[in-house]
Amino acid sequence: MGYCFGIDIGGTTVKIGLLAEDGTLLEGWEIPTRREPTPEGLLFDIRVSILDRLDRLDRGLDGEKKQKIRRADILGIGMAAPGAVTADGILHGAVNIGWGDVALAEEAERILGISPVCVGNDARLAALGEAAYGAGVGARSMLMVTLGTGVGGGVVLNGKVLMGESGVAGEIGHMTVNPFETVRCNCGKTGCLEQYASATGMVRVAKQMLAKRREDSLLRQKEVTAKALWDAAKEGDVLANEITDVVSAYLGMALANAMYLVDTEKIVFGGGVSKAGKLLLQKVEKAYRSRVFAHSREKEFLLAKLGNAAGMRGAAALLLQKIR
Amino acid sequence: MGYCFGIDIGGTTVKIGLLAEDGTLLEGWEIPTRREPTPEGLLFDIRVSILDRLDRLDRGLDGEKKQKIRRADILGIGMAAPGAVTADGILHGAVNIGWGDVALAEEAERILGISPVCVGNDARLAALGEAAYGAGVGARSMLMVTLGTGVGGGVVLNGKVLMGESGVAGEIGHMTVNPFETVRCNCGKTGCLEQYASATGMVRVAKQMLAKRREDSLLRQKEVTAKALWDAAKEGDVLANEITDVVSAYLGMALANAMYLVDTEKIVFGGGVSKAGKLLLQKVEKAYRSRVFAHSREKEFLLAKLGNAAGMRGAAALLLQKIR
Repeated sequence: MGYCFGIDIGGTTVKIGLLAEDGTLLEGWEIPTRREPTPEGLLFDIRVSILDRLDRLDRGLDGEKKQKIRRADILGIGMAAPGAVTADGILHGAVNIGWGDVALAEEAERILGISPVCVGNDARLAALGEAAYGAGVGARSMLMVTLGTGVGGGVVLNGKVLMGESGVAGEIGHMTVNPFETVRCNCGKTGCLEQYASATGMVRVAKQMLAKRREDSLLRQKEVTAKALWDAAKEGDVLANEITDVVSAYLGMALANAMYLVDTEKIVFGGGVSKAGKLLLQKVEKAYRSRVFAHSREKEFLLAKLGNAAGMRGAAALLLQKIR
Repeated sequence: MGYCFGIDIGGTTVKIGLLAEDGTLLEGWEIPTRREPTPEGLLFDIRVSILDRLDRLDRGLDGEKKQKIRRADILGIGMAAPGAVTADGILHGAVNIGWGDVALAEEAERILGISPVCVGNDARLAALGEAAYGAGVGARSMLMVTLGTGVGGGVVLNGKVLMGESGVAGEIGHMTVNPFETVRCNCGKTGCLEQYASATGMVRVAKQMLAKRREDSLLRQKEVTAKALWDAAKEGDVLANEITDVVSAYLGMALANAMYLVDTEKIVFGGGVSKAGKLLLQKVEKAYRSRVFAHSREKEFLLAKLGNAAGMRGAAALLLQKIR
């Protein structure tokens, strides 16, 4: 029996999973993300955490059954990182953590003493995780959209996630949806989907519309967050419904544009904002349908299933695909 | 030695090629497109034309060397059609010819008496043709854009052309590039790339700008065509340069958006408008670069090489891939 680790490096926590070679998750835990200009310290923390876990399993601590996992049984590590990753394992900057360009696969193999280490972008690997073990199981092809602080995504075709030549395949948050926007996105460009459809983008649009309009709204009574916006829309708040229509129109249009490129069977929504659930799917699907040909209208719009374990599980899936 | 036919059904002519199983084009010719509400008549014309050509080769007519091609040596037919084609070989309407939904592969096998017949969208197969035998040779991945009366396209990944679930993968002419457009595209939607970057779209934009502006321009002296527009820009005409900047901005933006999905190694430009050549590539690449991340800027922008034989050769490539 072989084992592998799936690791998802986030801005605040690192999610680590120990998985069997059939992809079953055996153990999952988190450690805090050490924020330093280079990844050595963080990789050392991961090393210590993994060694500690293997030792505890070996000795049957924490009331769990004893499980001896030998070095030779560890097949490798899949690692998700918050930035563009090219096929050579180079991470081209992780803005959220503060890293520049890093040979992450190589560094991780050196410090962790386990190889191979396969590295991929976190949103891409979340898509792979959902395709392999979550909402996309059984689909020939799938686009995943992650609506969080930013907007990420990933394209899975015939079970493989598309990485692209420069590591940006699936980076739909930075598709231009409004060529006339003058406000800058975090990325430095203007009119990116993320400026309208991320949690922060939705709040931005909501505040603009609240300032322009005079109607009363539930949104005037508390802090405007993406959750408060969608909750108000669900309660029938007229202005909140208009605002969610506007952001959904941008998202639906971006997804229609995406389908003119990859035309997948399913579209899966993940990330914090996707907790808005059915109403979000309905509004985005309506906007999507208005922007595509008649015979492309019947796509499956689904909510993600793996929550924040998607990236870690997709990282493991990437490793398992590479070594098979 | 095996042979196959590549057939590209266009609005005015049908291009037919006889190819060796290694993809070498042995004979290429054209017949006029019979425009009837269903494809039977046209398929019968193709049948007669193929039988005639095989007979002439057999008898060494036209001063060519005698070549006996037996039925048993014919491996099949690849067929490009001007509409969306799904994996089941159904053509979902060919507006230019006037067909509705047609089981084209099945019909062609029945009438031509040759099987298998593999059918694909013409722009998708032109992309495959360029990838296999033209500008994309050696590339891991390629996006082709066909700038003609309309705007078509195709995505080739690892040598295979992406068809998509509903046959629209690569249909970049109908990506929305201007969400605020009020004029309708031929497809019924608004703000499609085709409304700005096709030959007719460029003329439309040019006429709008000429009407709004008062400066003198070479374009005021004759009929405005896409060719006249780019020729004037090359001659240094200020207004023509502004107009070509505007249409190139839309095209560059659409390509940037496309790269956030498929992130290919090369972008290849075909179709009549691509004859504008270097100036077109320069302007579009400049617009593209302003809309992507720094590490995605260095894409190869290339002109197509196969001219109007791309679809026919790509159709043959599709057949050869399917039977291998």
